[in-house]
Amino acid sequence: MKLVLHSYWRSSASHRVRIGLGLKQLPYDYVAINILRGEQHADAYRAKNPMAQVPTLEITEDDGTHFALTQSLAILEYLDERWPDPPLLPREPLLRARARALAEVINSGIQPLQNLSTTKQVVKLGGKDSEWVAPFIANGLAAYAKLAAETAGTFSVGDAPTIADCCLIPQLASARRFGVDYKHLELLVAIEERCLALPAFAKAAPDQQPDAVKS
Amino acid sequence: MKLVLHSYWRSSASHRVRIGLGLKQLPYDYVAINILRGEQHADAYRAKNPMAQVPTLEITEDDGTHFALTQSLAILEYLDERWPDPPLLPREPLLRARARALAEVINSGIQPLQNLSTTKQVVKLGGKDSEWVAPFIANGLAAYAKLAAETAGTFSVGDAPTIADCCLIPQLASARRFGVDYKHLELLVAIEERCLALPAFAKAAPDQQPDAVKS
Repeated sequence: MKLVLHSYWRSSASHRVRIGLGLKQLPYDYVAINILRGEQHADAYRAKNPMAQVPTLEITEDDGTHFALTQSLAILEYLDERWPDPPLLPREPLLRARARALAEVINSGIQPLQNLSTTKQVVKLGGKDSEWVAPFIANGLAAYAKLAAETAGTFSVGDAPTIADCCLIPQLASARRFGVDYKHLELLVAIEERCLALPAFAKAAPDQQPDAVKS
Repeated sequence: MKLVLHSYWRSSASHRVRIGLGLKQLPYDYVAINILRGEQHADAYRAKNPMAQVPTLEITEDDGTHFALTQSLAILEYLDERWPDPPLLPREPLLRARARALAEVINSGIQPLQNLSTTKQVVKLGGKDSEWVAPFIANGLAAYAKLAAETAGTFSVGDAPTIADCCLIPQLASARRFGVDYKHLELLVAIEERCLALPAFAKAAPDQQPDAVKS
């Protein structure tokens, strides 16, 4: 079995899947898709990912079967069903729902509004991307912190990293990039510190990727 | 056990959960949250849903335990784990990933960009909501149709409704509302017709809700 991840270093959705693959200790080949240069719109890539987004995870089985998975949360759920250990979701149904809700606060509540394809349209309307994005990030992270206060142990839900943390850490990286301060959300700062102490999170960081551009 | 759904008739995320509850044949009380009047920002509602969004599903167990679930896809996954029959996800892992990816194409790929909280900001920048929203809906539905062409039987993935159809039907209703034509996406038109023939989908439609405003 062989895994190929199509990723962009700064893409928070790619970052989530890199964390998930790391937690599952699954080795993978990295294919950089430069979304600033529009490589996600190339026909060969769109054939794998009709939304023209990163990430895409290609899997080639030992018998030669080959398929491409899209949408970061769907990919993480697939990884968790196929390689259940360590789990990305708690066992208890209510806590599973909480972990998924936290993931969605970021996945649907924040990230689509900071996406390059969105901010390009904002700029066309005469807006400034960081001004557009900031309130969505601030409100979303505040909601995340309130919800996580009910479930957090060492991590967002209990004492092991979950799909929620796979989304949180990339979103905090984006918050820093867009200049959104979250230091007052002490729970999130503490969770981030604990996550980044784990190799799976450290190695998945944007600046650790082969296509990272050093500033 | 008692279920209370906080919903707005035109909210596509609320609509998804209404379909899911209908497919599972779970009776529920309907509490209307008028998002045009800002009722989602009331303190009592935000205590249940810190994102100040609809839907919220409150569950009171027979022993009095009470909790609130947020984020439509997390709610649908919870319903599916707790009341597995009929399933909202296929059995086979790859098809589960496909159904979830289709759901996310809409949930994170389209809906956040047509959300009232988003279009309000667009209008502030001098944009027009329908012009802003149209390309996101058109591109997203085209991608959905391409992906679904690989998995569809009678419905989006195989021959039973899944979480993907729970997202598709509300999104098609929103497309009509924003004047986005999708008649050329024949697969989606056919799936919509088959879904709307089922009571769970028919009863979940916006104009069938107690808070619907007749035009």
